[in-house]
Amino acid sequence: MLNLVVVGSVALDSVKTPFGERHDVLGGSAAFFATAASYFSPVSLIAVVGEDFPEVHLKFLQMRGIDLTGLERRPGKTFRWRGEYSHQLNEARTLETRLNVFETFRPRIPEAYRSPDLLFLANIDPELQHSVLQQVKRPRLVACDTMNFWIEHKRTALVRLLQDVDALIINDGEARALGGDPNLVKVARTIREAGPATLIVKRGEYGALMFSRDRIFAAPAFPLEQVKDPTGAGDCFAGGFMGYLASTGNLSEEAYSRAVVFGSVMASFAVEEFSLDRLRQLDYKEIEDRFKAFKRLTFIEDL
Amino acid sequence: MLNLVVVGSVALDSVKTPFGERHDVLGGSAAFFATAASYFSPVSLIAVVGEDFPEVHLKFLQMRGIDLTGLERRPGKTFRWRGEYSHQLNEARTLETRLNVFETFRPRIPEAYRSPDLLFLANIDPELQHSVLQQVKRPRLVACDTMNFWIEHKRTALVRLLQDVDALIINDGEARALGGDPNLVKVARTIREAGPATLIVKRGEYGALMFSRDRIFAAPAFPLEQVKDPTGAGDCFAGGFMGYLASTGNLSEEAYSRAVVFGSVMASFAVEEFSLDRLRQLDYKEIEDRFKAFKRLTFIEDL
Repeated sequence: MLNLVVVGSVALDSVKTPFGERHDVLGGSAAFFATAASYFSPVSLIAVVGEDFPEVHLKFLQMRGIDLTGLERRPGKTFRWRGEYSHQLNEARTLETRLNVFETFRPRIPEAYRSPDLLFLANIDPELQHSVLQQVKRPRLVACDTMNFWIEHKRTALVRLLQDVDALIINDGEARALGGDPNLVKVARTIREAGPATLIVKRGEYGALMFSRDRIFAAPAFPLEQVKDPTGAGDCFAGGFMGYLASTGNLSEEAYSRAVVFGSVMASFAVEEFSLDRLRQLDYKEIEDRFKAFKRLTFIEDL
Repeated sequence: MLNLVVVGSVALDSVKTPFGERHDVLGGSAAFFATAASYFSPVSLIAVVGEDFPEVHLKFLQMRGIDLTGLERRPGKTFRWRGEYSHQLNEARTLETRLNVFETFRPRIPEAYRSPDLLFLANIDPELQHSVLQQVKRPRLVACDTMNFWIEHKRTALVRLLQDVDALIINDGEARALGGDPNLVKVARTIREAGPATLIVKRGEYGALMFSRDRIFAAPAFPLEQVKDPTGAGDCFAGGFMGYLASTGNLSEEAYSRAVVFGSVMASFAVEEFSLDRLRQLDYKEIEDRFKAFKRLTFIEDL
């Protein structure tokens, strides 16, 4: 069992989809990531919340075995995001972002976490992501996420960060923007040459593609009849991916492929309900069953 | 070996993509389908061309072993389509359609083809597709394609046709329009209840999903570095699918899954060059190799 640390956001989300509406529910990249990862391995969360952050959410994260030593509580309000999805559920329209205490977040890694085996840098300013790397002993695996805003406005810092990253986990629009080409195979070559040996492209309802040294691996998304809220699916994917790798201690290409499927499994559960509600009532047996269903989904007999 | 008949269009296409431009090249749903299928099994083509149809294209189709007894040659000009693709290559913009002799095409099935084992009704007016069914002894497998125009303007005829169809092979936009929902799992239930036991949804660069009685099967698209022209990819998919099934004579669910992969293989070759150019220089060994590469693409070791 390897130890796993995530740095990112914990937020209160207000979300509207064609299937309902929720106000100030638990969200943020690190919360989604850590909750998904917690089904596989212990995880330590580095983030910041305000004085208004509800005790019930802290209890939930603790109950999931997530180490909150690195969760700062600062004067002011918690990061809030408000968004809505159309009937296609493919992309959120952000209605309001209030960074609040997150605006001045400078991740400080507690002494106890300075030798993580696996480190996930969720989507924050690439300069902050880089500052985290400078505070820790080189982990065995550093993975990160980013977003179009940083690709556009902080490309230099992002490119510098990528030199020290093993796995970049981003969505297809971001990959194309970063790689500067519509063709993902070309994009993968460009990005992998810039640093990350592994590129994982998340494609929402179309699944994920992993480009690594010897292989391209394709995982479909699990076909679901009910998708209520896609918020956090990408972070749950990353959490399942990293959590599974931490649990096995195996960082081979084969393990990465299985990890992509566990990531897809966790994302598929996440979208079935709002916020982290589906993950509140999930057990490991269900995760294993869906992993097997994923295998059946793409299984082809030999000729 | 089962016998296979396709009814559809043979056309002269003028296509512009970011990677080049071609004028009056071989196209049409039945030409793409039959060429792809011909790598697996003999196929008979029912279509119409005008007096201007180049001999060189007839020679090519014959050289592929395609039976052209059912290819009518009528006074007038051949069906012409002109379109272009943007850098994303995901959807053609039709610039011009001249139906010419295709406008009055009334498929007549030659005596020799009236007991097909497998029949593919490519995208034409659903009333004409139905008239084909009325001319033949019930095949073991009837598959068909359609398009948004018929879903919108001839829904009644299409719904009637679907009652007699075993497999519907359409793209995701068409599936959603026909099923009246953005969720493909719900759409699949609606469509399968309307007739076709099998629904195959083509999703371009995202691959294909097959919904059948006991299973959902997902095949990714083959990640290609060079996509020059997506025209005809869907028909080559259908041709690979039906051609493989005809070649084995096995119509089990397992065979269907392999057939979806062979369909994906043929589509992946088709888009590498304009028109049918890649399929002109293809051998069966390359097809088998890409089938194996497809298997590796989604292979997951057991836990």
